[in-house]
Amino acid sequence: MKDKIIKYIEDKELIKSGDRILVALSGGPDSIFLTDILIDISKNYNLKIGAAHINHMLRGEEADEDEAYVRSFCEKAGIDCFVKRVDINKIVKERGISSEMAGREERYKFFEELRKEHSYDKIALAHNLNDQAETILMRLMRGTGLEGLVGIKAKREGIYIRPILCIERNEIEEYCLEKKLKPRIDKTNLENIYSRNKVRLELIPYIKENFNSDIINTINRLGILLSKDEEFINEYVENSLDKYCDFKDELKIDEKLFLEKEALLTRTIKSALVVFSKKHFDFEMKHIYDIIALQRNKTGTRLSLPHDLEAVNVYKNVIIRFVNTYNEERIKKANILLKKEELNNNIISFNEYDMEFTVSSNEGNLIFSDDSLVKYFDYDKISKNIEVRLRKDGDRMKPLGMSGRKKIKDIFIDFKIPKDNRDFIPIVCFDDEIAWVVGIKTSEEFKINKSTKKILKIKLIRKEQ
Amino acid sequence: MKDKIIKYIEDKELIKSGDRILVALSGGPDSIFLTDILIDISKNYNLKIGAAHINHMLRGEEADEDEAYVRSFCEKAGIDCFVKRVDINKIVKERGISSEMAGREERYKFFEELRKEHSYDKIALAHNLNDQAETILMRLMRGTGLEGLVGIKAKREGIYIRPILCIERNEIEEYCLEKKLKPRIDKTNLENIYSRNKVRLELIPYIKENFNSDIINTINRLGILLSKDEEFINEYVENSLDKYCDFKDELKIDEKLFLEKEALLTRTIKSALVVFSKKHFDFEMKHIYDIIALQRNKTGTRLSLPHDLEAVNVYKNVIIRFVNTYNEERIKKANILLKKEELNNNIISFNEYDMEFTVSSNEGNLIFSDDSLVKYFDYDKISKNIEVRLRKDGDRMKPLGMSGRKKIKDIFIDFKIPKDNRDFIPIVCFDDEIAWVVGIKTSEEFKINKSTKKILKIKLIRKEQ
Repeated sequence: MKDKIIKYIEDKELIKSGDRILVALSGGPDSIFLTDILIDISKNYNLKIGAAHINHMLRGEEADEDEAYVRSFCEKAGIDCFVKRVDINKIVKERGISSEMAGREERYKFFEELRKEHSYDKIALAHNLNDQAETILMRLMRGTGLEGLVGIKAKREGIYIRPILCIERNEIEEYCLEKKLKPRIDKTNLENIYSRNKVRLELIPYIKENFNSDIINTINRLGILLSKDEEFINEYVENSLDKYCDFKDELKIDEKLFLEKEALLTRTIKSALVVFSKKHFDFEMKHIYDIIALQRNKTGTRLSLPHDLEAVNVYKNVIIRFVNTYNEERIKKANILLKKEELNNNIISFNEYDMEFTVSSNEGNLIFSDDSLVKYFDYDKISKNIEVRLRKDGDRMKPLGMSGRKKIKDIFIDFKIPKDNRDFIPIVCFDDEIAWVVGIKTSEEFKINKSTKKILKIKLIRKEQ
Repeated sequence: MKDKIIKYIEDKELIKSGDRILVALSGGPDSIFLTDILIDISKNYNLKIGAAHINHMLRGEEADEDEAYVRSFCEKAGIDCFVKRVDINKIVKERGISSEMAGREERYKFFEELRKEHSYDKIALAHNLNDQAETILMRLMRGTGLEGLVGIKAKREGIYIRPILCIERNEIEEYCLEKKLKPRIDKTNLENIYSRNKVRLELIPYIKENFNSDIINTINRLGILLSKDEEFINEYVENSLDKYCDFKDELKIDEKLFLEKEALLTRTIKSALVVFSKKHFDFEMKHIYDIIALQRNKTGTRLSLPHDLEAVNVYKNVIIRFVNTYNEERIKKANILLKKEELNNNIISFNEYDMEFTVSSNEGNLIFSDDSLVKYFDYDKISKNIEVRLRKDGDRMKPLGMSGRKKIKDIFIDFKIPKDNRDFIPIVCFDDEIAWVVGIKTSEEFKINKSTKKILKIKLIRKEQ
C-alpha cells in the first residue's frame, strides 16, 4: 500500500524532496492514516511533517477528546501539532452562512496562516478513493458538468495535495487496525454529512448489490477517464484566455471568443471570471449562459454577477468589473469641485457634457428657458462650493414643491429612469445639498423667488460624439 | 408539446421537408405517441409516415394482440404498416447470443430491409427523456466514458432519429390518455429489462426522494452539457484521423498519433477501428489501451482484437488488419509449388529462407546432419508435387514415431511455439500431406528406412538480413 501511495505521489507530482508538509489532522481514520504514512515515507523524501487540528467546538467533550487524541498522537510521532479552537456555531450566527461553509472558511484560513508563518510547502488532505466516488455521485445527482465529474483533484494550486486519494476506505481501516492506531470516529467533518452518509450507507450499498459490486472503482475509472478529456479541453481554454481576454482593472472579453464552440466558450468565460475575481466558487452555468446572452444583446446591456461583479456589453465585447470599485472610481473621476467665486462665466467639462455657469442680477426680466438641461438657482443660497458628481448610495434631496426629503433612488423610480442610465446622470450639489439631478428634478432649497438677488444659470450642452 | 417536439426536430435537424419516415412501432405508449405526433406534423413537413412492427413471438397471445393493435392503429391512421414475425428464442439458441442482442440485430435488419425496399429516408425511434436519464445512469454504473454519459443521440448516421427524446414519460402517458390512444403495455422491449426496471422503479424514485426531485432533468442537462464537450473533442478527432490514419486494405496508424494527448489518442484509435471495421460495438477502452501498449512495445508485437481484427507493431507504426483476409493473402503469397522432377539441385526462396533440395541414392553411407533445418525424406513416396506454404486452419500430420494424426496447432502448443511465430513457420507438403513443419517435426509418412532407394534432402538457410 505504501508503494501504491508512493507511485501515486510520483505520478501526480504531489511531493518534492525536502518539502515541509502540514497535514490536516481531524483524528479520524483517514487523516491518522495519512499522517502515519507521510511520517513513514518522510525519510525517502527528506520531509518535515506537521499537523493542524481544528476544534470546531460543536460536540462538547467529544471534540475535546479528539483534540487530546491528536495532540498525543503528534507527540508520540514527534511532529509539530497546531490546534485552533473555533466556535463554528457563533460564526454561523454572525455571518449567516451554513456550518459547512463556515467550517471550510475557518479551516482554510487556519491552514493558510500556518503555511505562511511556518513556511510549509504543502498542505495534505486525507480524502480517499471512496470519498472520491461519493463526491462524483453527489455532484451527479446535484447537477454538474465534466469538471465536476472529474471529482476531487489530487493537487490544487500546487499547495493542497491528496496523497491517499488512490486508497479505498477499507484498506485504511485495516491498516489502522493492524498498526493499532485507534483513530477517533469522524462524527462530523462539517460537510453536508446528511447527503454524504446517505450516499455512503444507502446508495452505494444498493448499487453494489443490484448493479455493480465494483462501483467504487468503476466511478473512479470514469473520473480518471474524464480528467483526460477535461485536460485536453483546458489546454485550449488556456490559449483562449490569452487570445481573447484582457485582464486590467476591468476584464475585457473580445467578441470573437463568442464565435468559438460552446465547450470552449463557456469554459473560457468561467475561467476568466475566476482569474479576474480570484474567487473559485459561486460562478454557475447560469451566469455563463447569461453572459453569452448579454453579448448577443445590444450594447449597454448589463448583468449582475456574484462577488460584486457586473458584466456590460460594450459594442459586442463584454466588460466584467467590480461594481463597487468601478463606482468608487467612476465617482472619484467624475467629480468636479468649484468655489462659489469661480462660477461666473465658467465652462467646465463633465463626462459627455459641457456645463456653462452664468451669474446675473435678478432684474425680473430674465426669460426662463424650458429646456430641461437649463436651470436657474438662487446664487446667494450657496455658501461655499459647488460640486458636480454622479449618484452615491443614500443620496437624498428636497424636490421642488415638496416639504420633505426624498431618496434620489425613488425619484429615479418615479421618473422611470432605467437602472443602467442612473449611474451616468450628473448631480449638481451646492455645498453638500443636492440642487439638481440633471434633466430630472431641481431642489426646493435653491429655488428663485422674489427676494432672490443674484441668479445662477447652469446650462448643459451635450458634446459632439 | 407539439411545439416542443418541432423545436427539437429543427434544432437537431432530424427531419427535412418531404422525408419518408418509418416509425419503429411496438404498440407501447412511447411509439404510439411518436407515430401520432409524426402523423400530426406530417402536413407541416410534407412527410410520408410508415410503421414497422416486429412480433418477437416471445409472449404468445399477448405478442399477437400487440401486433393486431398495431395493425389496427395504422389502418385507422391510414399509414403503411409492415409486420415481421421473428422467433427470437430460436435465434438465441441457434446463434448462442443473448435475446437482447438477437432482438437488436433482427430489429435493425428489418428496418434496413424496409428502408431500402421502400425508400424511407429516416427511421424514427421512440426513446424519451426518462429513457435518456436511465441510460446515462445505467452506463455510469456499468462503467463508461464521456461518450457514454452523453446518452442516446438524437440522430445516428443521418438515418436513425429520436424526435421525442426531449419529452418526459409522464407527458407521453397524459397525451395518450387524453387522446384515448390506449397503447399496449410494454412488457418487454428485449433490452436488459431487469436492470432498466430497477433503475426506473427503484433507483430513480430513491434519488428523487432523498437527493433531487428533478433528477431526470438534472441528468439530461448533464448529458447536453457533456455533448458539447464531446463535440469539441470530436472535431480534433476528425483532424487526427485525416492526419495520422491511412485506410487501405490495412489500417495504418502513424506513430506520431501516439504523441498526442490521451483524450485525442484514445478517441482517434477507437474511431479508426470503427471506420475501418464498419462495426460500432465491442471495441472497449481495454482494447484501446492494449493498442497503445503495443505501440510502445517492440516491432513485430501483435494483438488480437474483436471482429477478427489484429494489430501489429511495425516499426512503431500500428497496422490493423482483418486476420482472415490477411491470412488468406499471406498464405496465397507465400506458396511455392514444385513438380517432383524439379527438385534435384534446386534452390528456391521462401520468405526469409533459401531452401536447397538435393536428391541422392540411398547407399547406406549418408551422414545425417542433426541440424534442425536439415531433413531427409523418402523421395519415392512423393507422387507428384511438393508445396511449401504457411499453416492453415485444420492442418494435421502424422508425426514421426506416431501411428495417429495430430493437429499442427497442438504440435505448436506442445513445443511451446509462441502464437505470434506460428504464422511464419514454413510447412513442407508432399502432394497434400504435411511432411515437415520446419524446425519442429517431420512426418512418419515419408521417413527413410532400409528399403528407401532415393533420399530427398531439404536444407534451409536463413538469408542474411
